[in-house]
Amino acid sequence: MALNPQYEEIGKGFVTQYYAMFDDPMQRPNLVNLYNAELSFMSFEGQQIQGAAKILEKLQSLTFQKINRALTAVDSQPMFDGGVLINVLGRLQCDDDPPHAYAQVFVLKPLGTSFFCAHDIFRLCIHNSA
Amino acid sequence: MALNPQYEEIGKGFVTQYYAMFDDPMQRPNLVNLYNAELSFMSFEGQQIQGAAKILEKLQSLTFQKINRALTAVDSQPMFDGGVLINVLGRLQCDDDPPHAYAQVFVLKPLGTSFFCAHDIFRLCIHNSA
Repeated sequence: MALNPQYEEIGKGFVTQYYAMFDDPMQRPNLVNLYNAELSFMSFEGQQIQGAAKILEKLQSLTFQKINRALTAVDSQPMFDGGVLINVLGRLQCDDDPPHAYAQVFVLKPLGTSFFCAHDIFRLCIHNSA
Repeated sequence: MALNPQYEEIGKGFVTQYYAMFDDPMQRPNLVNLYNAELSFMSFEGQQIQGAAKILEKLQSLTFQKINRALTAVDSQPMFDGGVLINVLGRLQCDDDPPHAYAQVFVLKPLGTSFFCAHDIFRLCIHNSA
């Protein structure tokens, strides 16, 4: 049991790095390096996939070129294995689609002196307040 | 490393049980029994608290009597310590407040033959699509 006291900076730093790569179509496939070959889970709008190879396929299927993104909340908590739980709420607009609120959860697990992304759940927030 | 193959049922079952208790002001304080005395973390609209005693204080400070709640998505993933990660998106209306979309993340950790809630992050989704 080893809580990482830097969880807040780690969470914010990861989110900044992740979206910088995600939002650049040239860099997006490189996100695969943040996931584990076998252990990592991703749920993307309810579709559940496991392992870096399938996650890369999913990333490569996202063809939008331009993303406008604004984060409204990043909440991080330290986990007892030294990992970090991160919940992000934000707004994004892909190409000429209408803007949408979204929620994304990450679980980072320690690996050597760094982390990998063990869990990733993405959902658009539809059906908002009337 | 022991993934629980029942993660989907465990996630949905926990969420059903949790909100049945939360949405009944008489039962709400009993939610404290789902958290660990020292280990559990809660982030409630950005306010971070740790341990069952402080979580109980927070639950008791929530004075709304009537909640209308509708879930739009419950995504669960198995964790390698046998736990379950759950992301909930939904809509709630407290008393005569306007309805709001919200996101809530739970991490359940195995404890004997059951689970406790090790992490809980709640946020209203404000600033939705224009």
